[in-house]
Amino acid sequence: MTSLQKMLQEVDQGLPRATDKLLDLISIPSVSAEPKGSKGIARAAEWLRRELSELGLETTIAETTGHPIVLGTTLASNDRPKLLFYGHYDVQPAEPLDQWTHPPFAPRVVEEDGLHRIYGRGASDSKGQLWSVIEALRAWKNVHQSLPPGIVVLLEGEEEAGSPGLQGFIAANRALLRCDVAFISDSDMWSRDQPAITTRLKGLVHEKVTIHAPNDDLHSGHFGAVAANPIRSLAAILAELHDASGRVAIDGFYDDVADLPPHIRSQWQALDNAPELDGSINLQGGLPEQGFSHLEAIWGRPTADINGISGGNQGPGERSVLPGEAHARLTFRLVANQNPDQVRAAFQRFVRDRLPQGCTASFEGDFGTPAVALSQDNPFLAATARALEAEFSQPAILKGTGGSIPLVEQLSTGLGVECVVTGFILGDDAIHAPNERYDTERLHKGIRSWVRVLAECANIP
Amino acid sequence: MTSLQKMLQEVDQGLPRATDKLLDLISIPSVSAEPKGSKGIARAAEWLRRELSELGLETTIAETTGHPIVLGTTLASNDRPKLLFYGHYDVQPAEPLDQWTHPPFAPRVVEEDGLHRIYGRGASDSKGQLWSVIEALRAWKNVHQSLPPGIVVLLEGEEEAGSPGLQGFIAANRALLRCDVAFISDSDMWSRDQPAITTRLKGLVHEKVTIHAPNDDLHSGHFGAVAANPIRSLAAILAELHDASGRVAIDGFYDDVADLPPHIRSQWQALDNAPELDGSINLQGGLPEQGFSHLEAIWGRPTADINGISGGNQGPGERSVLPGEAHARLTFRLVANQNPDQVRAAFQRFVRDRLPQGCTASFEGDFGTPAVALSQDNPFLAATARALEAEFSQPAILKGTGGSIPLVEQLSTGLGVECVVTGFILGDDAIHAPNERYDTERLHKGIRSWVRVLAECANIP
Repeated sequence: MTSLQKMLQEVDQGLPRATDKLLDLISIPSVSAEPKGSKGIARAAEWLRRELSELGLETTIAETTGHPIVLGTTLASNDRPKLLFYGHYDVQPAEPLDQWTHPPFAPRVVEEDGLHRIYGRGASDSKGQLWSVIEALRAWKNVHQSLPPGIVVLLEGEEEAGSPGLQGFIAANRALLRCDVAFISDSDMWSRDQPAITTRLKGLVHEKVTIHAPNDDLHSGHFGAVAANPIRSLAAILAELHDASGRVAIDGFYDDVADLPPHIRSQWQALDNAPELDGSINLQGGLPEQGFSHLEAIWGRPTADINGISGGNQGPGERSVLPGEAHARLTFRLVANQNPDQVRAAFQRFVRDRLPQGCTASFEGDFGTPAVALSQDNPFLAATARALEAEFSQPAILKGTGGSIPLVEQLSTGLGVECVVTGFILGDDAIHAPNERYDTERLHKGIRSWVRVLAECANIP
Repeated sequence: MTSLQKMLQEVDQGLPRATDKLLDLISIPSVSAEPKGSKGIARAAEWLRRELSELGLETTIAETTGHPIVLGTTLASNDRPKLLFYGHYDVQPAEPLDQWTHPPFAPRVVEEDGLHRIYGRGASDSKGQLWSVIEALRAWKNVHQSLPPGIVVLLEGEEEAGSPGLQGFIAANRALLRCDVAFISDSDMWSRDQPAITTRLKGLVHEKVTIHAPNDDLHSGHFGAVAANPIRSLAAILAELHDASGRVAIDGFYDDVADLPPHIRSQWQALDNAPELDGSINLQGGLPEQGFSHLEAIWGRPTADINGISGGNQGPGERSVLPGEAHARLTFRLVANQNPDQVRAAFQRFVRDRLPQGCTASFEGDFGTPAVALSQDNPFLAATARALEAEFSQPAILKGTGGSIPLVEQLSTGLGVECVVTGFILGDDAIHAPNERYDTERLHKGIRSWVRVLAECANIP
């Protein structure tokens, strides 16, 4: 039996224990985007540090400007590549809680549809992902009696809040983090049977706009007929955000957008629909940009999405108010060559150009990241593709994503290294939504895949 | 000295005590539209009942389907008209609390601009109004040693929630409430120096609309490019609610709207601007219906106002969510002949006609009232006009209002009686808004005015 076979056997036998550990991790409410989550963040960080330490890594909890980073390292070897594994232990808020069938932080395994589904916030995004890497290291150690050399495990605590502290941390710890490749375990499969490596990630701009009327709240009966209504103005502005063909109507939005290379476009067009679009999501009522397939629209075209809106009476109870202000939250998903700052500025101009006289707009938005794409000849990409194909008996799709992982751009730029982004999330895992789920079947194959990646990388000079 | 002069002297001397009593009443947080206000409602009702009882009225706290009604009566006399005085002791919610310079339910008198301003929720709308009537009855009693015959004081506890229980109460107590006129003390002056009687009130339809996408919350990066966004659809629908000329674009909305009678239109056009529009409100950014003066737009034209909007991420924190639903709350202000049910149905059609395929809409809205107008030859209108002119040395303007008082329609219809609507609110009293205020100067003249109304009515056969 080869050492690889022995490691895979270790994984097979250790799955129940690995599952229990993952449930423990999910039960810690490490919500990063809300102040109330900070206790859970601290607990999760310490829990992970202890796990890595018990596994034999040199560990530390590193403070950042925001939530801490858990670091685990092994000694580097001169003749072996240095591999960084990135994961994030923070999760999205679980609200609205009343839509969960099980409490989000009391995870359980439910047998349904022939699977063993783990329900809980963070099950798939991304605790199930990072835990697979750690279990793979455990299998390696159990077989080799030592961990691989040159490993850096970096577990972030604020990915869901946009990784505000990561960039500074990387800049301050460049020597420690220097590596030949960064593996990011936070991405999707192509389908349950076919793995994928995400080679194109979108850039991201978050922006909140507030329309201010010239008055504070007024009685809408007395003044509604004649005074400014910021909700009405906001609705009018948002209604103009897209034109009739689904294109973003912001002046200059597409100026730096290149057409997709023909070979990429034809590769994507040969694919069946994206895993996100496997039928579990109803696309009726969507207004995609015309002239592009759904896949191209998601992976290859920039978008403007309204994520939230608020103003005036939110209830309960009726209230005849003409509100003094109204708010909307938007995200812009960017493709290669678009500049986040220019997109933000163009949106602000778009709003200001449409304000009624006397109304003003203010904006909040504290980060933006450009899109990123991986070289097709990267040896670690090839190694990962071989490992995944061996595990799944199907080639890995080299896909894009509509999502954004700001840290990929930060790791790439900050460390001067390319990132191989993969993972085992599926479209119906309900990430960022109620009833988020994963399953032990994918946990199993995920751990096996990372074992194979470790073995493949050991052969790269 | 006539008995009228003696009563007015009583009012002058009693003002400090009347002010203190009013402050006590304002300090009770009788918010009707929120469950948390029910304690304050009960306290205010009992406080008022005791005051009326001590004054010598026969009192009761009458249960309704909602908040209780405080009733005070005196024995009727065959040869004297029976007068009903309506007021409401409930108040609007005080939120947003951080915009109040004084706590809303810890009222105080502040000397500013040559006035003694009472700051507090309900100061003007409507505790200051109802208290003026009660103090006028006190002055009458102090001079005549008895109260006038045939008085009904009806103090409602859910006017700000649309008076849901009033109609049933009136229907069940028609004999007790039968009267020759209903005075409603809940309206505006023309200006600080010139009184007014409101003879045209708008009808009111409240409606909440929810747009449902075919999916629950989704990740906006993964699905924003292709799946329905109910906020975007809601914004598009609301943006079409008015056409470019400011008219409501709902099909059939104006079908039953008659042109204003020419003599009313010319009376209004001869007026300077409305008291609501005295310069304290900035009208920049307003989009009134073209072809009408501001006064006509407010008093004489039906409107559609967006009072609230919500959906998706309300913060704090960023969240890349494509929400499953979005909500808006609207009010329609109606003029004579418009049918609330037909307006509501037309709006629902308007929304449904504009829904993207696969999206649905649901609606909530539990009452609607038609507009109401007072006969110009009503003798109590004439008596009130004489009383106000005597007090202010200026004729009372017979005006309209953009506001709605559903109970006026309910009292009119339920008791078969006309309502004389007057009061002493001014446009910058910030009713329904932070820093609501009244002043002891108007409290004083308000009480004197009601004393004069009582005296005038005593002469009507």
